[in-house]
Amino acid sequence: MPPPPTKRGEERRAAILEAAQRCFRRYGFHSASIASICKEAGISPGHLYHFFPSKEAIVEAIVEGDRERMKAAVAEIAAQPDLIKALVHALELIDSESGFAFDNVLSAEIVAEAARNPRVSEILGRFDTDARAEFGRLLSLGKDTGQVRHDLDVEAMAGVLLVIMDGLGARAISDPQGSRRALYPLLGAMLKQRLAPDPVN
Amino acid sequence: MPPPPTKRGEERRAAILEAAQRCFRRYGFHSASIASICKEAGISPGHLYHFFPSKEAIVEAIVEGDRERMKAAVAEIAAQPDLIKALVHALELIDSESGFAFDNVLSAEIVAEAARNPRVSEILGRFDTDARAEFGRLLSLGKDTGQVRHDLDVEAMAGVLLVIMDGLGARAISDPQGSRRALYPLLGAMLKQRLAPDPVN
Repeated sequence: MPPPPTKRGEERRAAILEAAQRCFRRYGFHSASIASICKEAGISPGHLYHFFPSKEAIVEAIVEGDRERMKAAVAEIAAQPDLIKALVHALELIDSESGFAFDNVLSAEIVAEAARNPRVSEILGRFDTDARAEFGRLLSLGKDTGQVRHDLDVEAMAGVLLVIMDGLGARAISDPQGSRRALYPLLGAMLKQRLAPDPVN
Repeated sequence: MPPPPTKRGEERRAAILEAAQRCFRRYGFHSASIASICKEAGISPGHLYHFFPSKEAIVEAIVEGDRERMKAAVAEIAAQPDLIKALVHALELIDSESGFAFDNVLSAEIVAEAARNPRVSEILGRFDTDARAEFGRLLSLGKDTGQVRHDLDVEAMAGVLLVIMDGLGARAISDPQGSRRALYPLLGAMLKQRLAPDPVN
């Protein structure tokens, strides 16, 4: 259901989305009831359904926001003079309070729900395909500008980058002491070694 | 609360744990009620509380099982003639139906819950510390036997391995089409390149 075209309608929709995300973080996607989201947003169920006909529609909107931020982040990396350096720096941001493109807690919630909810699985699968394509294009651009080795398997490396991003996001939760700082120089070196035209040791 | 020392008690405890895991997978950790677990296990709440005084105690038991399997997997890798090859192969197993040491869906559930439940966060954090130590010991063993380069930052690499494992586990859910098969040769090459005493290109 598309948002109403008025500015006020868009603001309302954004406010409801924010409230829903707070509820998902607090109770989990599965436990957060429509009633709890309405209470958090200070609206009636009818009002909520006008903007989001289901919890899955809310997930769709959250993932749509992730997609926009992911594309913006990739475009920003592509605009930097040193593509590999910018990419490694972007990975480090996943761990920061300010975050990369995603909210690690909400991402974990959505992954867990995708395992049992085919509609959420489909939403996540589409995002995933888009993310792989975006990072694949970034790496191909790097080849074109001579910053990435010409024989790199771009699709496989896009997959490896998503593994690393998902792993860092999960570990920001499971390892809250932040022993991760130590792994970034090594991770960066591994990526440079594989991506740069002349292998660096 | 330790399980009763009888064989029958241990079997009962294991059956309840299995039932709880089915409920967590089906409804999510937060939504799975004690009543639903009792129904699934065919027991009374009093019986359940005898073995597990809380849902967190069940998570503790699940993670304890993960810990045993993780340690067994690391010991199996250590016993192979080619440590790096065995390690890369173990990573590939994360994606298989048979699984590596963990259930990817339950892991996503527990990570999501850890973000809002300090007791679950503490349980997960302890597992995480143990896993990093286990993989660190494995890499140190590789150094001792000359299979791993002597100047490797063992702690940082153990962290990188956990990032990759968590990422592969999450992606087994978010990318169900399994485009991941293509990334394994590249991931294996990256690890070999960084781990082996003589860099391989």
